[in-house]
Amino acid sequence: MRKVAIIMGSDSDWPVVKGAAQQLKDWDIPFEAHIMSAHRTPETAVRFAQNARQEGFGVIIAAAGMAAHLAGVLAGNTTLPVIGIPMKGGAADGLDALLATVQMPSGVPVATVALNGAKNAAVLAAQILSLSDDTLADKLAAAKEEMKEQIARKDAKLQEELA
Amino acid sequence: MRKVAIIMGSDSDWPVVKGAAQQLKDWDIPFEAHIMSAHRTPETAVRFAQNARQEGFGVIIAAAGMAAHLAGVLAGNTTLPVIGIPMKGGAADGLDALLATVQMPSGVPVATVALNGAKNAAVLAAQILSLSDDTLADKLAAAKEEMKEQIARKDAKLQEELA
Amino acid sequence: MRKVAIIMGSDSDWPVVKGAAQQLKDWDIPFEAHIMSAHRTPETAVRFAQNARQEGFGVIIAAAGMAAHLAGVLAGNTTLPVIGIPMKGGAADGLDALLATVQMPSGVPVATVALNGAKNAAVLAAQILSLSDDTLADKLAAAKEEMKEQIARKDAKLQEELA
Amino acid sequence: MRKVAIIMGSDSDWPVVKGAAQQLKDWDIPFEAHIMSAHRTPETAVRFAQNARQEGFGVIIAAAGMAAHLAGVLAGNTTLPVIGIPMKGGAADGLDALLATVQMPSGVPVATVALNGAKNAAVLAAQILSLSDDTLADKLAAAKEEMKEQIARKDAKLQEELA
Amino acid sequence: MRKVAIIMGSDSDWPVVKGAAQQLKDWDIPFEAHIMSAHRTPETAVRFAQNARQEGFGVIIAAAGMAAHLAGVLAGNTTLPVIGIPMKGGAADGLDALLATVQMPSGVPVATVALNGAKNAAVLAAQILSLSDDTLADKLAAAKEEMKEQIARKDAKLQEELA
Amino acid sequence: MRKVAIIMGSDSDWPVVKGAAQQLKDWDIPFEAHIMSAHRTPETAVRFAQNARQEGFGVIIAAAGMAAHLAGVLAGNTTLPVIGIPMKGGAADGLDALLATVQMPSGVPVATVALNGAKNAAVLAAQILSLSDDTLADKLAAAKEEMKEQIARKDAKLQEELA
Amino acid sequence: MRKVAIIMGSDSDWPVVKGAAQQLKDWDIPFEAHIMSAHRTPETAVRFAQNARQEGFGVIIAAAGMAAHLAGVLAGNTTLPVIGIPMKGGAADGLDALLATVQMPSGVPVATVALNGAKNAAVLAAQILSLSDDTLADKLAAAKEEMKEQIARKDAKLQEELA
Amino acid sequence: MRKVAIIMGSDSDWPVVKGAAQQLKDWDIPFEAHIMSAHRTPETAVRFAQNARQEGFGVIIAAAGMAAHLAGVLAGNTTLPVIGIPMKGGAADGLDALLATVQMPSGVPVATVALNGAKNAAVLAAQILSLSDDTLADKLAAAKEEMKEQIARKDAKLQEELA
Repeated sequence: MRKVAIIMGSDSDWPVVKGAAQQLKDWDIPFEAHIMSAHRTPETAVRFAQNARQEGFGVIIAAAGMAAHLAGVLAGNTTLPVIGIPMKGGAADGLDALLATVQMPSGVPVATVALNGAKNAAVLAAQILSLSDDTLADKLAAAKEEMKEQIARKDAKLQEELA
Repeated sequence: MRKVAIIMGSDSDWPVVKGAAQQLKDWDIPFEAHIMSAHRTPETAVRFAQNARQEGFGVIIAAAGMAAHLAGVLAGNTTLPVIGIPMKGGAADGLDALLATVQMPSGVPVATVALNGAKNAAVLAAQILSLSDDTLADKLAAAKEEMKEQIARKDAKLQEELA
Repeated sequence: MRKVAIIMGSDSDWPVVKGAAQQLKDWDIPFEAHIMSAHRTPETAVRFAQNARQEGFGVIIAAAGMAAHLAGVLAGNTTLPVIGIPMKGGAADGLDALLATVQMPSGVPVATVALNGAKNAAVLAAQILSLSDDTLADKLAAAKEEMKEQIARKDAKLQEELA
Repeated sequence: MRKVAIIMGSDSDWPVVKGAAQQLKDWDIPFEAHIMSAHRTPETAVRFAQNARQEGFGVIIAAAGMAAHLAGVLAGNTTLPVIGIPMKGGAADGLDALLATVQMPSGVPVATVALNGAKNAAVLAAQILSLSDDTLADKLAAAKEEMKEQIARKDAKLQEELA
Repeated sequence: MRKVAIIMGSDSDWPVVKGAAQQLKDWDIPFEAHIMSAHRTPETAVRFAQNARQEGFGVIIAAAGMAAHLAGVLAGNTTLPVIGIPMKGGAADGLDALLATVQMPSGVPVATVALNGAKNAAVLAAQILSLSDDTLADKLAAAKEEMKEQIARKDAKLQEELA
Repeated sequence: MRKVAIIMGSDSDWPVVKGAAQQLKDWDIPFEAHIMSAHRTPETAVRFAQNARQEGFGVIIAAAGMAAHLAGVLAGNTTLPVIGIPMKGGAADGLDALLATVQMPSGVPVATVALNGAKNAAVLAAQILSLSDDTLADKLAAAKEEMKEQIARKDAKLQEELA
Repeated sequence: MRKVAIIMGSDSDWPVVKGAAQQLKDWDIPFEAHIMSAHRTPETAVRFAQNARQEGFGVIIAAAGMAAHLAGVLAGNTTLPVIGIPMKGGAADGLDALLATVQMPSGVPVATVALNGAKNAAVLAAQILSLSDDTLADKLAAAKEEMKEQIARKDAKLQEELA
Repeated sequence: MRKVAIIMGSDSDWPVVKGAAQQLKDWDIPFEAHIMSAHRTPETAVRFAQNARQEGFGVIIAAAGMAAHLAGVLAGNTTLPVIGIPMKGGAADGLDALLATVQMPSGVPVATVALNGAKNAAVLAAQILSLSDDTLADKLAAAKEEMKEQIARKDAKLQEELA
């Protein structure tokens, strides 16, 4: 199976971003996690993106806050799907990161998930990889089923509380 | 190759959304386009999403404006990757559609592209499908190269203008 | 009297949403509260809405945060009035939930109240039910009178403090 | 059947607001439309709201733009359900009207619909009145069915266009 | 001298609003403070505004949060200048209160100060009253001078810290 | 009677701002209008504000767009009440001007009216001057009465249209 | 004198951006203008920035819209001052470009000017270069003087109009 | 070398702003820091700006919050480059300060950095001064290198953690 790359702009993003790593691990999806910055290590980031497909990656997840350029810069240097996680935090509460991640120009998309949406970035990566991996597709279907049952259990608990 | 589904909430979205269809056609990616509404034809939408994987679809693109629930409702009923295009228009200038598309809860991601980003939705779909299709991957690389050359031609033209 | 349904997307909404339940209880309005999700248990939600009128419900209150689709999905599947409570919280401070709840397309309204406005959702439900229930109408009038007196008492207390 | 009141702050709102009147007429719901202002004719507005229930009204629809106080002032003087239509226009693009309409304090809800959502205000009023009027409930169900068919016809037309 | 009225929508506003009272007291400007609500005690508020001029008031300060209608409703019922303090707090962080206070329709202004700007409301009231009260004008000039000196002292202290 | 100063940052503001001049003229309130800029003619603006009171002005109206500093700079140099008109226009749709006008620091208020609210700035100036001018107070009361009658006439016309 | 580089992401920015070129030309400041994209020609952009100082450039002006990464990417690859012009346009009205330009992480500033502020970018570049060029400093002082006189002429014209 | 001026509107800004002072000190760039207010000590601020160039300053850094006029007022009175730091805080979360700082009118730019971006203001000042100071240019290049290495060390540490 192709690997997932998890790239973040700063180690301060890790407490949120590791939610993506954990989800991938739970589904046995191979991944690498790296700290790279569009502004502080631009060459490393560019080179990583340029080589990612032939290095066996299938999806790149990029998390950054503020003027979040990381996902866009990676997307400019690869034809792999790039998933952007806009990070809340810093002084402007995340709207800066959301708009800087999602409003990409024509020809260079970034698949943006919710603010701090690390787990969802992993789920989206898994959905993408599941197109050529039936086992993973089954795991995703099972997870969807488990979500349903969890809601049903919570509703049952609420009924007890209300009774 | 798996097909792409292009779903839109209203036929008034088509003038923008057909940019996605055109891009897919240019790269010979099979697709279907449909009008379905999360609020007006909820059962059709739910059923479509539930069957999409076994009907041979690989990616679902969903375009909707205002309180844009379409992509989210489709994502709730499939394990395929769902790409959301928030449509500008209506009375609130698109911020409503953007937030209603991207801020999905944990476990149910929507891969959101820019406001009216129909072409980018198609590019993202192609990137996803290219993971198991080397010909398509080559087309994407060629398109990236063509973008570079187009910029270079425009820069050359500007230099003439300035000389 | 017709019942009120209180539907929330997650049990984490309950601490706020139970303000609605409490208000309904205070006025002896029968209600049920359930956890259902537009994205995690879409079929349950759709079926609930489709059957709600004949099950004796008169109003549906739906609370959800982020890309709040719950009220809209329920409204798409019933002709009962649906009241939406946009929940503050998550990463975008409630503006996402407010816009995703209120900006419904033509033909499928959601009666939106303020962010976290659980009590007001219950008051609105009571106002609706009071159209065919004079006892309830009297209770609403009495509550309005009590609000006036409470303000008067608070003003009197302020006058003492200032004297 | 109880009447619907359509109150607007200015005659310049009428081109949008008459969409509500038209919808009510289509369903044979009796209504009155009036121009009253929370700021320019406050006494008229207060008195209207105080007498509305005994004058045979069941729902009040109020449309206003900018610092839209009309719906709130009416709601402060009646126990009938009040539906607010925030009007786009003026210098701030409707966000002012939306927040000024929806963010009502505890005890005094306004059932807010989308910006310029005149038709939806009428649909919501009809849903409310349908609780004690089975004929109207049937009309609402038929309208929902017609919306479905309209979408289906539009989809069929798109399929022809794409074929 | 004409009195200043300080009206607030809720006693929970008092901890901020008393900053206005304190400032007026410091300058020996007579004032009354009252709790009244545009939505909960509309008649009291309307009557107060209608009689304020002849009761000897010269300026009305009104503080309210959320869909802040209080200042506007008072302004609709008096020809005295009305100063609005939009209160931060509640679920939408004050932008709702600011827009609901400042965006008044033509003919009915509210002199809006900053979010939670209680002290500035008092200063503005004093500026207005100073037009026919030279002693007060002198106090305002002295306060301006004292502000300058305070900044100078703070700068001097910073120079010591940096030396 | 004290004069009103109407100061604007650019002659491009005049088409909106002359609405204030017209209103003052209608009520026979003496005024001067000037173009001065907080950034381009800072010394002129500072000097004007410092001398305004002794030159016989009672109120200063200041209109500016974008990073609207004009009202604040004038307010920093006078103890007269300063009314700020945030001008819509330029690239950011007026929210920049509104926040830059209203969010003044403690001690230096600007009485802010709505975006482009030139007429209301004049009404507010008149309300301020009416405190020591009973004739003007009567004119304001008459204008309020005329507004009521205008609404009544418009409502009557609507009733004819609906009959 | 060091040259100014004017870099824009797309030739569609030129109609606005040439305002910067014109201003530089008026003051005889040497400049080059180029079209380069952070996403479409990332390597060209990176290489340009890395070599700019030794190629004789003193300031880089970068104009881009939407998720405006161009200024940031250039700033990541040079120690020259980089001035960012957020371009209005596209679907989100410029707030996306403003936040994506200004909210740069620690260590990599972009000197951001107003939306579409091409002329001001040139003025800022000139101010920077004037630190080691007294002739240019004199031109800037003269331009400031001319601005003052222009305002004075406009004010004089207004006085004639009002007389 | 020319000095940098750090001007702040209030001593409460110092805990953030001293980050700029520290950075300048680290690179041996001479600076002065002062508290001055556009509204409370306007004459001091105007005079400081008018004399700054001949007093040996090369760059002015100005930090202010809310309706942040300080940078603009200084820029109106000098031809030196002025860097604005919009301060987060107060009641509106910094968007007020950002827009009031960056949206300057034509001819009077303020080089705006991120909210609370004190360190970046110092880096930008250093970049400007480095144009005529090769030693400083070398320090900037070394700092850029150190940032790269820091990211590399953090990435190495993450790899250990993941191994």
